[in-house]
Amino acid sequence: MRRFGAVVVGAGPAGMSAALYLARFGINTALVEQLAPGGLLLQTSAVENYPGFPKGIQGYELADFMSEQLSPYTNLSRIQGGLSEFKIAEGRKLLHIDDEWLEADAVIICSGVRYRKLGLPNEDFLLGRGISHCALCDGNFFKGQIVGVAGGGNSAVGESLHLAKIVSRLHLIHRRDAFRAAPFEVDRIKQTTNIVFELNTIITALHGEKQLEGISLKRLDTGKEEFLPLDGLFVFVGFDPVSGFLPEEISRDSQGFIVTDTEMRTNIPGIFAAGDIRAKLCRQIVTAVGEGATAANAVNIYLEHAHG
Amino acid sequence: MRRFGAVVVGAGPAGMSAALYLARFGINTALVEQLAPGGLLLQTSAVENYPGFPKGIQGYELADFMSEQLSPYTNLSRIQGGLSEFKIAEGRKLLHIDDEWLEADAVIICSGVRYRKLGLPNEDFLLGRGISHCALCDGNFFKGQIVGVAGGGNSAVGESLHLAKIVSRLHLIHRRDAFRAAPFEVDRIKQTTNIVFELNTIITALHGEKQLEGISLKRLDTGKEEFLPLDGLFVFVGFDPVSGFLPEEISRDSQGFIVTDTEMRTNIPGIFAAGDIRAKLCRQIVTAVGEGATAANAVNIYLEHAHG
Repeated sequence: MRRFGAVVVGAGPAGMSAALYLARFGINTALVEQLAPGGLLLQTSAVENYPGFPKGIQGYELADFMSEQLSPYTNLSRIQGGLSEFKIAEGRKLLHIDDEWLEADAVIICSGVRYRKLGLPNEDFLLGRGISHCALCDGNFFKGQIVGVAGGGNSAVGESLHLAKIVSRLHLIHRRDAFRAAPFEVDRIKQTTNIVFELNTIITALHGEKQLEGISLKRLDTGKEEFLPLDGLFVFVGFDPVSGFLPEEISRDSQGFIVTDTEMRTNIPGIFAAGDIRAKLCRQIVTAVGEGATAANAVNIYLEHAHG
Repeated sequence: MRRFGAVVVGAGPAGMSAALYLARFGINTALVEQLAPGGLLLQTSAVENYPGFPKGIQGYELADFMSEQLSPYTNLSRIQGGLSEFKIAEGRKLLHIDDEWLEADAVIICSGVRYRKLGLPNEDFLLGRGISHCALCDGNFFKGQIVGVAGGGNSAVGESLHLAKIVSRLHLIHRRDAFRAAPFEVDRIKQTTNIVFELNTIITALHGEKQLEGISLKRLDTGKEEFLPLDGLFVFVGFDPVSGFLPEEISRDSQGFIVTDTEMRTNIPGIFAAGDIRAKLCRQIVTAVGEGATAANAVNIYLEHAHG
């Protein structure tokens, strides 16, 4: 069993920023990454809202830069593998990665979220080729064009208000006849003239060989199907915290996101969380990296108190 | 009187990130900057800990990039000037900039901190030329070298622990014979063999034509003066929130920093804070930009509720 001062779970922007700061604090750190480093950055085409890149930067490129920035630190171990178990036993924090157990004095959970998909053929291929899960990231690429938004909750409605300012026409596709979003926001989309409502409607197919060209809609009241040409489709049918591995003791909100204080401390001493996995309102690359650094700083203070 | 959806006070990293997000939300925004954009970035030589720049970046260059990134947004007005008065009158937020009044539906305060100086001749010139206020930013430039640290509080002691891992010898210069820092940290610096204590000692002069070469010390118990050659000097004699202009109603901690919740909301509806001016433990470029985005998101939600 290897023992570390800190283990960071997840190598998206939050986890890489946390690892950078922990390494610079001189803490013996492990960064556990299941796939390639970058997290949801790898699902994002161009990033225009990360301060410091005035011309924008491709998501994969920013992920590469963040990863490369960690390479000088010899006190940082990068462990590729899936976290299958995480136990807290008498204050000890034990993490099972593939066939190895790690022990950590402190843990920062940066496991992020997983977007819910429509579950249609061709969907994975068209992601980043017309299909997006982030209006704030990708909305400006559809200036003056026609897009669809799938969903009926706060994200779908809120992001539609944002997108409607940019695109020429927006089709809001929702399988029910009413929205789950807050009434004041629903009122506003009703007053937005370039939003077309497609209620009682589901998406049954995605079309496009190289790039999204349109979708098939099915009207649930009549059973009729039709083709709708689209330049883009934003899918907001929800996302889920990646939290299957978490010990029950860690406090979460009703949706399963980890509750922290302003310094990223969870209810369990020595366990911290940063990035999309946190219960919060703004899930962005720049908030994730900020929280990663804050969490690393809190870990440093925690370790100095615990072992000082 | 010009009226804006949001006014951001201060164009350091927090303020520029907030302005970027507000502009992208489509909010009519003013960014008030007293000096050149960048804030304390302009006092920082190379930045190695801002994720996305694996080779590091000069502070002024990162400031330029962040500023340039704002230029495409026509709904963002940049107002150069000093904020002399900020009033809340029956829920209206009024800001006096030079000879103009602005009215804002929401305000994000990003006015930052001001480092306290030693108050010695040559100090401004040598800042960035051997003198630094940020061990985390600049410590790695003094690998294996000899540095001084001025101060006796938590910052001086905590940053000395960090620096001692990097430098060959560290002189900790404090005008009293005991430290104000937490005992567990003081114990640790006492056990750190490459930290030399210079207690009851003040710095009376800074030497160096192009770069810091050494300092003059005066022993308060004997009155003797001596020259100490140094490669670097880190000054942690405190910093103060830039908050002279703030209305009394806004809650602050005992040191004058603005208290917010995790979404950057102050106690006054429609007033938010981000960056170094906030009461918090980790003051870094990356935390400032993250908080700027979070505050902008909270403003967007606030404006939709207030005016939706």
